[in-house]
Amino acid sequence: MRIDILTLFPEMCEAVLEKSIIGKAREKGVIEIFCHNLRDYARDKHRRVDDYPYGGGAGMIIAPQPIVSCFEDICRVTGKRPHTLYMSPKGRVFDQKMAVELSGMDELCIICGHYEGIDQRVIDLIVDEECSAGDFVLTGGELPALMVTDAVSRLIPGVLSDEVCFTDESHFNGLLEYPQYTRPQSFRDLEVPQILLSGHHGNIENGDVRSRLK
Amino acid sequence: MRIDILTLFPEMCEAVLEKSIIGKAREKGVIEIFCHNLRDYARDKHRRVDDYPYGGGAGMIIAPQPIVSCFEDICRVTGKRPHTLYMSPKGRVFDQKMAVELSGMDELCIICGHYEGIDQRVIDLIVDEECSAGDFVLTGGELPALMVTDAVSRLIPGVLSDEVCFTDESHFNGLLEYPQYTRPQSFRDLEVPQILLSGHHGNIENGDVRSRLK
Repeated sequence: MRIDILTLFPEMCEAVLEKSIIGKAREKGVIEIFCHNLRDYARDKHRRVDDYPYGGGAGMIIAPQPIVSCFEDICRVTGKRPHTLYMSPKGRVFDQKMAVELSGMDELCIICGHYEGIDQRVIDLIVDEECSAGDFVLTGGELPALMVTDAVSRLIPGVLSDEVCFTDESHFNGLLEYPQYTRPQSFRDLEVPQILLSGHHGNIENGDVRSRLK
Repeated sequence: MRIDILTLFPEMCEAVLEKSIIGKAREKGVIEIFCHNLRDYARDKHRRVDDYPYGGGAGMIIAPQPIVSCFEDICRVTGKRPHTLYMSPKGRVFDQKMAVELSGMDELCIICGHYEGIDQRVIDLIVDEECSAGDFVLTGGELPALMVTDAVSRLIPGVLSDEVCFTDESHFNGLLEYPQYTRPQSFRDLEVPQILLSGHHGNIENGDVRSRLK
C-alpha cells in the first residue's frame, strides 16, 4: 500500500512516521508513505500557499492550486488516482470500520488543512471523502492524518510482527475489558490478582478467569 | 499551563510540539510542555520498561515503576499533583467539552501507552481519567496525547494570535457549515460563488447570504 500525505508540515509528519512499528514497516518496504510539502507546489516566489477568504471572515484559506498540483504529480508518478481524504471536522468520524475499508485501498492520499481550511474547489475536484478525527478543534489536520495512517497501516499484512495478536477482534475486546499486569508481583503494596498468578492460561484465555477480575 | 507527556517516544512528540502554533506558544512562554522518556526512569541496566503480562497473552505491558517514578519526579519539581490522563481505548472519548475542562487545569500529565498497554496499578495509583481518541486501534498513545495537547493548548489565552477568531463558537459552526473560497476567482473552470464576491460582509456574516450557499 502507498499513502501520500499533503501538508504544510512534512518534517513533523516524517518525525512521527519514521518511528516505531510504522517506521519499521516502511524500512521493510511493506508500506510506502510519502509526505509532500505543499509549499513545493506554490507558484509564488515566496512559496505562499494561503490567502484571504472570499466573503470576509478571519483566518486564511489554503489556495486550490498547490494542493491540486501536488495531487496531479502523485497521479502522474503512480499512474493511478488515489482514494483521497480531506481531514476536516465536517467529515465522517474516523473509526475502526473506516480503517478496515481504507486498508483495502492500494493508494491513499490524505490532505491536511491548516489555518482555517482549504478552498472548496479542491474538495469538489479531487476529494473522495471528508474524514474527521472527532468532535474537537485542532490547529491542523496533521495529527488526524497521522492517526488515520497509523490505524490503517497496522492492518496491512506484514506491518505488525505478530499479525494475529493485533487484528484478532476478541484480543482487542480483551484489551478493552480486562485489567493487565506485569512484574513485579507486588508494587507499592498493590498485588497482581492471585488468579493471574495461577498459570492456568487456558482458563484465563477462555474468559472464565478474566471475567472474574472485572 | 504546564503539560507533561510520559512516553517511550519523546523525540517524536517533541517534533510535533515544536512546530506551528503550539511551538510558537511554547517559545513565548504562554504554555510549558515537557516530553519525558520513560526509559530514563527504568532501573534495569538495559533501560527495559516492558515485560510479559501475567496470565499469559500476546504482547508486552509497560511496567509500573518507570511510569510512577517519572510521575513522582514531576510532582517533586512542580510541588503539585497534576491532573493525570491515560490515553486508552477504554477511556472517555475525547471531545471539545473535555478540551475546555482540561484547559482550566494548571498542570496536566498525559501517559502514553505503547505495546499492549500499561500495568493496572499505574491506573489505580496515579491516573485520574482514562481518555480515548475514538473507536479505533493505534500502535500507541502518542498521537492521541498530542491531539489532546493541541486541542487543549489552543484554548489557553495567548496561544492563538487572534483568540476570538478560533474560540468563537459561531465561527467554528460556520467552518462546519459553509464552503470556503480564496483566490483565484476562477480555478479549473470552477468559480467562486457570485454572492461571496459581492463584498456585503454584513450579510454574509449574519448568515443571510452564506445560508444560500449550502
